[in-house]
Amino acid sequence: MGGDHGPGVTVPAALAALRRHASIKLILVGQRDALVPELQKQRAGESERLSIHHASQLVGMDEPPAQALRTKKDSSMRVAINLVKTGGAQACVSAGNTGALMATARFVLKTLPGIDRPAIIATLPTIQGHVHVLDLGANVDCTAEQLLQFAIMGSILVSSIEDNPSPRVGLLNIGEEDIKGNETVKGAAELLRNSKVNYCGYVEGDAIYTGDMDVVICDGFVGNVALKTSEGLAKMITHFMRQEFRRNILTKVAGLVSLPVLKSFHRRVDPRRYNGASLAGLNGVVIKSHGGADTLAFRYAIEEALNEVTKHFPEQINEKLESMLVKEGVT
Amino acid sequence: MGGDHGPGVTVPAALAALRRHASIKLILVGQRDALVPELQKQRAGESERLSIHHASQLVGMDEPPAQALRTKKDSSMRVAINLVKTGGAQACVSAGNTGALMATARFVLKTLPGIDRPAIIATLPTIQGHVHVLDLGANVDCTAEQLLQFAIMGSILVSSIEDNPSPRVGLLNIGEEDIKGNETVKGAAELLRNSKVNYCGYVEGDAIYTGDMDVVICDGFVGNVALKTSEGLAKMITHFMRQEFRRNILTKVAGLVSLPVLKSFHRRVDPRRYNGASLAGLNGVVIKSHGGADTLAFRYAIEEALNEVTKHFPEQINEKLESMLVKEGVT
Repeated sequence: MGGDHGPGVTVPAALAALRRHASIKLILVGQRDALVPELQKQRAGESERLSIHHASQLVGMDEPPAQALRTKKDSSMRVAINLVKTGGAQACVSAGNTGALMATARFVLKTLPGIDRPAIIATLPTIQGHVHVLDLGANVDCTAEQLLQFAIMGSILVSSIEDNPSPRVGLLNIGEEDIKGNETVKGAAELLRNSKVNYCGYVEGDAIYTGDMDVVICDGFVGNVALKTSEGLAKMITHFMRQEFRRNILTKVAGLVSLPVLKSFHRRVDPRRYNGASLAGLNGVVIKSHGGADTLAFRYAIEEALNEVTKHFPEQINEKLESMLVKEGVT
Repeated sequence: MGGDHGPGVTVPAALAALRRHASIKLILVGQRDALVPELQKQRAGESERLSIHHASQLVGMDEPPAQALRTKKDSSMRVAINLVKTGGAQACVSAGNTGALMATARFVLKTLPGIDRPAIIATLPTIQGHVHVLDLGANVDCTAEQLLQFAIMGSILVSSIEDNPSPRVGLLNIGEEDIKGNETVKGAAELLRNSKVNYCGYVEGDAIYTGDMDVVICDGFVGNVALKTSEGLAKMITHFMRQEFRRNILTKVAGLVSLPVLKSFHRRVDPRRYNGASLAGLNGVVIKSHGGADTLAFRYAIEEALNEVTKHFPEQINEKLESMLVKEGVT
């Protein structure tokens, strides 16, 4: 139900995902009165692969998480997560209020043993492919131990989903030298060096996009600022580019001639293709879609859930966490 | 002497600045043996407006600040800052080691009364013009009081240099709602609301580039990550754009046709035009140029120094800080 656009986006995205993936079944959780007309609009209906699970309440996009948790026991978000808990679903995908989704998922599903708090993992494009960055905003203050847990979860995500046996992990800092950074980062570096993570040292912000790392670790405050700053810069660049191509008749012609190039460029950095952040560290798969996601973007979020379920991401964390905390021979 | 390129960049940049600004005099501080040949190469020499002040040592780009401070008493950096201290110069511009520059400047010039630690202010382009962001990396951990001091210094920079009587100040956070953020940010918000700063509330990372703020405040860790992340993203976008325009003969033609548009676009976001970060809060003007600056970029850094000297930036902080800390009627 959630997100800025509601069923107008989530329903067609669900139908698109069903068409592309013959193995999946989807449950639309939310107000039946809103979902049925949207299905009809798409000339679709309930079927063996697509069911509606009614939930009477909605969590507002700006509603405080604690309030949502206390007063919205029949919200689409809560009911969907309950389904994951009871085995009625294998994953929950939501474009709703991030804080409420995180709080509800933690409350209902609980974190996996050894994980203090879940983290939000996002995928971003790089010059060489893509990178996974966490935490993107679930934890404003982190301990060194939590940063280590993030590194392990990020490594397991990449190794299980991308068949990369030794993902390179960088720790976000304000310089690459050992003396740089705050105490938490220095403590995390120490823990990472002694862990089984393929730790490659400190990286600066620009390393997110070079593709030299498979996983970049940071606290949720820093990660969120890095992500939002990137969004802002990308918007500004697009804005300037449009302005320049629309300046006069000659530049408009240049724009027309360059249209295929510009389109192919935009496809490469299209944030919709990277939609679907993982709430990692929970006892179940929960995927957060961007609130403003369109149909294509929301379909990508559903596919991220499919990936994590198929590759048993939470189970992999549960199985491997303990053994990755400390290298053999380190006491 | 400093930076990645040394006198090969700083000398021609100095000559360019002298040509453009009839009122200024420049002192090249560094190894005479390196500076004289570079001047000759540029068909220039010492004059009434351009002198060489010999300094025998160099601070390495990766040298620990404490070591530079202790062992490099005749480095170009130290000697240049000493000149500011003794009145032999009104400003110091350096492309050298940031940490060493900051440590040396603090040690020699001292901070202004009421300023706990200096901050690095950078100027960045926005959709509507430009924005000043601080701190960009001088302070990895900040108190709420320091963030307030940053806000005041940023406001004074904008009001004195840009004749903007009431600069809009945003506090970088991971959401715009009051409940978001860590304790330091919440404490700073409280102080800012009670100050004479034109405080406009929390902003997220994307607000750096919208142009809705004149000043954005954050701790040095977050600011440095935001800046470096932006650099990385900009490089990736440029790389992809080049690749797409070079893909085949048709796209190359499109690139040729679009060349004036692309050039004019690049001019708008050219980071060289924004080179020259201010080390604010010191008893004197010290400007940090990007280490990789070219001649054009370094000239911009010299011009930033000229601006700050002309508009008496440190004196303005000294004069106004106290009165801006608390609003009338607040106790």
